[in-house]
Amino acid sequence: MRVAIQDRYPDDFAHCFGCGKHNTRGHLLKSYVDGDEVVARFKPREEHTALPGFVYGGLIASLIDCHAMATAAAAAERAAGREIGEAPSPRFVTAALNVAFLKPTPIGGELVLRARVAERSERKAVVEVELSANDVVTARGNVVAVPMPASMARS
Amino acid sequence: MRVAIQDRYPDDFAHCFGCGKHNTRGHLLKSYVDGDEVVARFKPREEHTALPGFVYGGLIASLIDCHAMATAAAAAERAAGREIGEAPSPRFVTAALNVAFLKPTPIGGELVLRARVAERSERKAVVEVELSANDVVTARGNVVAVPMPASMARS
Repeated sequence: MRVAIQDRYPDDFAHCFGCGKHNTRGHLLKSYVDGDEVVARFKPREEHTALPGFVYGGLIASLIDCHAMATAAAAAERAAGREIGEAPSPRFVTAALNVAFLKPTPIGGELVLRARVAERSERKAVVEVELSANDVVTARGNVVAVPMPASMARS
Repeated sequence: MRVAIQDRYPDDFAHCFGCGKHNTRGHLLKSYVDGDEVVARFKPREEHTALPGFVYGGLIASLIDCHAMATAAAAAERAAGREIGEAPSPRFVTAALNVAFLKPTPIGGELVLRARVAERSERKAVVEVELSANDVVTARGNVVAVPMPASMARS
């Protein structure tokens, strides 16, 4: 059975509004390894509107961000010789989030996010994300992920 | 009395999750002209968490996005010789949203967004945004705004 990358984030760091399993008021995004890609699906709610009929760009940026962090985690696990689910997923944070809005994203259906790692080292990963609605790519993200710094572990 | 730029968006285009006055489930961000800058203040809710103690990056990106669109609208009005409030605010949409997360943003207090237009033509505006918490700049945005295309007016 496939395990969502975010569902294996350590309990102390699983409160993200976008994708933390312990944040039930958030988006609860779930990203899954699928071959060389990482894939997530999300259905915006009616209030996630930009202009009537279209998805809010802030939500699109948020989904791309969380999906990219999960993709970086999956790549780090793969580099360590593990599959998602075998161990807690490593936690990455965003250094830079760049989103190009190619065309308006129609609201009403499911959005699909597909991501690949373009570049990876121990210090960072660059993740490229495509977001599509009705099989049309409407936004692209280029996201720089870095391992969570120790200063963010306050528990 | 100062008028928020978003409160003068036309009623048909004031449903944005981030800043539309008709979206009461959204963030209701309000941006105000302040000399050569545009300023907004926002207090994240507890659930707007990234890792415990820190503000969710997707929210930061969302606020930067909406604030930049308001800044582009204010610059267009100024170029037309009008002040905000004299006429409906023109509606811009985001072509590109680039956010650098400089350091973790502590949760609990008010965030302050300050923006300036770096470059402007009839076709687009490039807006630079600084987001700070407790007087420390924690994120910077560079946002490309374009006038709302006619294809997004579906009413």
